[in-house]
Amino acid sequence: MAQDHIVKSFDEELEKLNNVIAQMGGLAEAQLAESIEALVRRDGDMAALVAAGDKQIDALERKVESLAVRLLVLRQPVAADLRSVLAALKISGLLERIGDYAKNVAKRTIALSQMPPMEPTHTVARMAGVVQEMIKNVLDAYIARDAEKADDVRRRDVEVDALNTSLFRELLTYMMEDSKKITACTHLLFVAKNIERMGDHATNIAESVHYLVRGENPEDERLKNDTSSLTVMDDNIPEQE
Amino acid sequence: MAQDHIVKSFDEELEKLNNVIAQMGGLAEAQLAESIEALVRRDGDMAALVAAGDKQIDALERKVESLAVRLLVLRQPVAADLRSVLAALKISGLLERIGDYAKNVAKRTIALSQMPPMEPTHTVARMAGVVQEMIKNVLDAYIARDAEKADDVRRRDVEVDALNTSLFRELLTYMMEDSKKITACTHLLFVAKNIERMGDHATNIAESVHYLVRGENPEDERLKNDTSSLTVMDDNIPEQE
Repeated sequence: MAQDHIVKSFDEELEKLNNVIAQMGGLAEAQLAESIEALVRRDGDMAALVAAGDKQIDALERKVESLAVRLLVLRQPVAADLRSVLAALKISGLLERIGDYAKNVAKRTIALSQMPPMEPTHTVARMAGVVQEMIKNVLDAYIARDAEKADDVRRRDVEVDALNTSLFRELLTYMMEDSKKITACTHLLFVAKNIERMGDHATNIAESVHYLVRGENPEDERLKNDTSSLTVMDDNIPEQE
Repeated sequence: MAQDHIVKSFDEELEKLNNVIAQMGGLAEAQLAESIEALVRRDGDMAALVAAGDKQIDALERKVESLAVRLLVLRQPVAADLRSVLAALKISGLLERIGDYAKNVAKRTIALSQMPPMEPTHTVARMAGVVQEMIKNVLDAYIARDAEKADDVRRRDVEVDALNTSLFRELLTYMMEDSKKITACTHLLFVAKNIERMGDHATNIAESVHYLVRGENPEDERLKNDTSSLTVMDDNIPEQE
């Protein structure tokens, strides 16, 4: 009976922890969506609000940390319970970093809103749409302890990597064609890289969920499709358009 | 007597954990130094070796994780001891990310080694030198539980941020002057950003050390000097030079 009570309390406290993580995930997703909306609308004021909003995610991470420490001290969990608490800590750390990247996108959007509109912004927005879905789905997978759903998220990362690699080449070409676009293109390159990193972190969360549910790492090697860092181009201004 | 034995074992196991972290820190520092040496020498083969070496750091992180879980399960630490184990986990995660950034520098160096030499590489190398020292010093501070030394590391981050911001402008100017340098400059921009992020993570480790020793976060707000993401430039090719 007493044992049962202790077990129940652990679950209740873990649920409290998971609620904060779900809240963090919702915020991170919203921060990404709003930073991209500001980017597309070229709205520097909106971007500044998004950048300021990152503090909320940071505060929630500290809340997760203190709830987790409380659980470790009071419940002294072992085996699967301990794994749950450590996974919560890891996942909240990753969400905090996703929030940081959204903040950086917002900051670059403030600069970009003062420059002429850029066509490749739409490819960036498409990439962000995929990553937003990944963040949403991986949080659902975490809450539902659904390893298969987590694996689906993991598989989508190659899509984001491929978009980033093609965007990298596209933006380099733009810069070569028109030196007036260099600053804007450079910021967009970093925006795209930030989004690609958010996708990586959603993938890391997916791997944590898989491990949490199955007790072992996913079998297949992680696919990597982002080869932008290896890009070598002939830096000649295209003769025609 | 039995109590004493348990306490001693905890300290011994924590020391084992700290040895692995010191090893991770040494490797991360070496990875950064070697990736920059490869960059300056334009040695793609050396860069490829550095990129492959990241696996070692990843393996050590997993070792830290399993030692930490073992400690949590067998010793059920509370208060300062629990804080030590959680700090070890956090710091090894940050070192793993520093290793990732070094790997990315190495990958971009492979591309850069196929392009003409770039003058701003030397500024990048100088930035890397500062960050390398930060990594070394913060690990020393961690092992010695020296909060003041950790605070010194924290204060050096503004130097790195300032170097990155000025490098950002310098590289944009290069690109505007000569479109043939755009791809190389873009890779160097990302290399510089990676190094700046390594500095951020050394700073995060410094904050963890401060918290570990003092039981509270550093009082002063963290200084941020990297304003490169807010850079707006007139994209006109300079008339002269």
